[in-house]
Amino acid sequence: MIRPTQEWLTFEQQFQQIVQLSDKTVGQNRLVYSPNWLAAQTLLIQFGQQNGLTATVDDYGNVYLDLPGTDNQAVATGSHMDTVINGGKYDGLYGVLGGLQAIISLKKQLGTPLHTLRLISFSEEEGSRFNTTFSGSKYYALHQTVPVLTDSNNIPFDRARSQAVDQLQKLGNVRVNRPSLPKSFTELHIEQGPRLTASQTQIGLVAGIVGQRRWSVTVQGKSNHAGTTPMNDRHDALQTTVTIITELNSLAHRLSNHLTFTVGQLNVAPNTANVIPGKVQFTIDARHADDHVLDHFEQVITDTCHQLMDSQINVHIKRYVKDLPATFDATLLSQNEQLAQRLKLTSRVMVSGAGHDSYVMNQVTPTTMIFVPSEDGISHAPNEFTSPADLKAGINLLMASLQAQAY
Amino acid sequence: MIRPTQEWLTFEQQFQQIVQLSDKTVGQNRLVYSPNWLAAQTLLIQFGQQNGLTATVDDYGNVYLDLPGTDNQAVATGSHMDTVINGGKYDGLYGVLGGLQAIISLKKQLGTPLHTLRLISFSEEEGSRFNTTFSGSKYYALHQTVPVLTDSNNIPFDRARSQAVDQLQKLGNVRVNRPSLPKSFTELHIEQGPRLTASQTQIGLVAGIVGQRRWSVTVQGKSNHAGTTPMNDRHDALQTTVTIITELNSLAHRLSNHLTFTVGQLNVAPNTANVIPGKVQFTIDARHADDHVLDHFEQVITDTCHQLMDSQINVHIKRYVKDLPATFDATLLSQNEQLAQRLKLTSRVMVSGAGHDSYVMNQVTPTTMIFVPSEDGISHAPNEFTSPADLKAGINLLMASLQAQAY
Repeated sequence: MIRPTQEWLTFEQQFQQIVQLSDKTVGQNRLVYSPNWLAAQTLLIQFGQQNGLTATVDDYGNVYLDLPGTDNQAVATGSHMDTVINGGKYDGLYGVLGGLQAIISLKKQLGTPLHTLRLISFSEEEGSRFNTTFSGSKYYALHQTVPVLTDSNNIPFDRARSQAVDQLQKLGNVRVNRPSLPKSFTELHIEQGPRLTASQTQIGLVAGIVGQRRWSVTVQGKSNHAGTTPMNDRHDALQTTVTIITELNSLAHRLSNHLTFTVGQLNVAPNTANVIPGKVQFTIDARHADDHVLDHFEQVITDTCHQLMDSQINVHIKRYVKDLPATFDATLLSQNEQLAQRLKLTSRVMVSGAGHDSYVMNQVTPTTMIFVPSEDGISHAPNEFTSPADLKAGINLLMASLQAQAY
Repeated sequence: MIRPTQEWLTFEQQFQQIVQLSDKTVGQNRLVYSPNWLAAQTLLIQFGQQNGLTATVDDYGNVYLDLPGTDNQAVATGSHMDTVINGGKYDGLYGVLGGLQAIISLKKQLGTPLHTLRLISFSEEEGSRFNTTFSGSKYYALHQTVPVLTDSNNIPFDRARSQAVDQLQKLGNVRVNRPSLPKSFTELHIEQGPRLTASQTQIGLVAGIVGQRRWSVTVQGKSNHAGTTPMNDRHDALQTTVTIITELNSLAHRLSNHLTFTVGQLNVAPNTANVIPGKVQFTIDARHADDHVLDHFEQVITDTCHQLMDSQINVHIKRYVKDLPATFDATLLSQNEQLAQRLKLTSRVMVSGAGHDSYVMNQVTPTTMIFVPSEDGISHAPNEFTSPADLKAGINLLMASLQAQAY
């Protein structure tokens, strides 16, 4: 059996170099195609080339670092290089550099694999600059391109993309190409939730990703004077909204303990202290591994809102996200379970509550994910943290998994 | 006894001329010291001078139109010239032009009064341009000036004021002065609530103004990922806010039927569909004629919020408005009640739920108000409406009242 990775210092140095690119901001900022993002993908290509990997960049700025095998199939691992605004250090970057580390260690210990080992650094997953998510993996796996979009500074996606990608593609010894699809994909990632730390488990073996739906609800009442309008003569859009949220919260809980229900966005109009709100728009985000539960909850939302409508209060519901649950490859999952045991790592099988590039990759190739703990479940924030021991454990399991798949 | 006003056409024409200044916007826009406001106060001075009244303008742009009497006391009426953004036609303007009409009619029918009859058009009451309210009546009655303030375009209050007021003070035959206080003040105004129309009453005789308090409540929870954070591990500031509002709504109702309770403003952070809200700031507006009820409600707010606090959820309450209830002059009120009977107008005594210039004037002189119906209680909106018959009835009662006080 292979030894655990010996190149920890290399991983840590590479990690620090990319993290330092965001030194001038509170958190990590590598929005897709930004100067920081370009510097990070450039550094990654250098890290790969220094270790004898071949670099390829496609037209969306996905970076592929290959350790060529003896046949023409590839076993891939990786994650995304972009971050949310003021994000944490580990989300995305851990899977990219952890994957690179695993491949470098395998190369040193075992030499040329049977199947090409491929590290993928996807250009964008977070949707933090343009109103589109997973554009990197969707371009690679599904050949999907992004429609006409601009960022908050009115810069078009395609202009930002070509300016940044051109510079990557002009680097020395970089192939310009969108490689063929791999025979499997394994993503190493932080959990971004509290379940591993709460249960003191080292590894999460991800069986799939919850289905996710989002609705925008608009409550239209009647704006009026807060002082002169008697309480029994009001059509207060915010009070109706409060009733809807209260009822949904209790109904969601009754439907399933595992159903998550979040009202994340809520806007009041006219939003003035002395005026009864005439209109409220709010979002509902609901997730569950079983799509039937989400069907049921959608009916609950409709019924609850319709019961509160009258001649003066109108409620409009619009679903704008419907992502089906994903079930990852069972063989890779059970293989990882056995390998974790052999490495004496505690593990549990779990469903991811967040979307990942693996959601897209799973549509075209057998896919699995390895989670490591996020302290206090904090993510998408500067105080996101995973201990060095947990980071190492994840990389070691990934190494074992890639070895089993590629050698 | 005097005849009802014969100058209806004059009133209607003057009203239309000032309303037409806002032809380019959805509602009425005469924000203090704006071009429309300046044009309106200029027209008003012309209307007064054409009818033989003397015009005075003070340094805040309050306009005084006097029908001089034989002694040196004054009986005043009036309201404010400014509007909210996209406001209605009647709020403020009705009391200004209705008061002018009453004085003109009395002059024609009865000639010179014993006490000077004074029409006041206050510069500003609504607080819609600068974060200050009643600045006109406060300057006249209390000699209060406005601290350093800027509007949303960063224009300082004092610059806007001096530029506009200079032009008014330079008009022909205009005195520049802040007149001495009157022996009484009567304000004619639309109800801005539904009680008169609901009870099919022509006149509201205002016994006082409710006390009013406003609080800003900040709920600080913990922002987190909407998909990966289990429901039982959340510190959702919006869900806590929803619980607070639900409880307060029911407790307010139990405290008193006449207590109004409004959450008019509510802001969520980070306000993103897939992030659990970490912070919510909202306002509470509560009004009642009895200040003890408001004391009691303040305690209820504090108790409710504190019960929901724990190690992860903090609630901070800050009171930023505390206006005591006002009781208007009992003699003027009962005189108006008798006059309404004599004019065969149906009337009821009521407490105003809204603040008015009369709230300020009442601090320095015996004050009363006359309300006319607002259809459906709509106000501060373009579809604010009072029927011509109701407008006439209010002016006729004001005439009778001013006659009784000044001749």
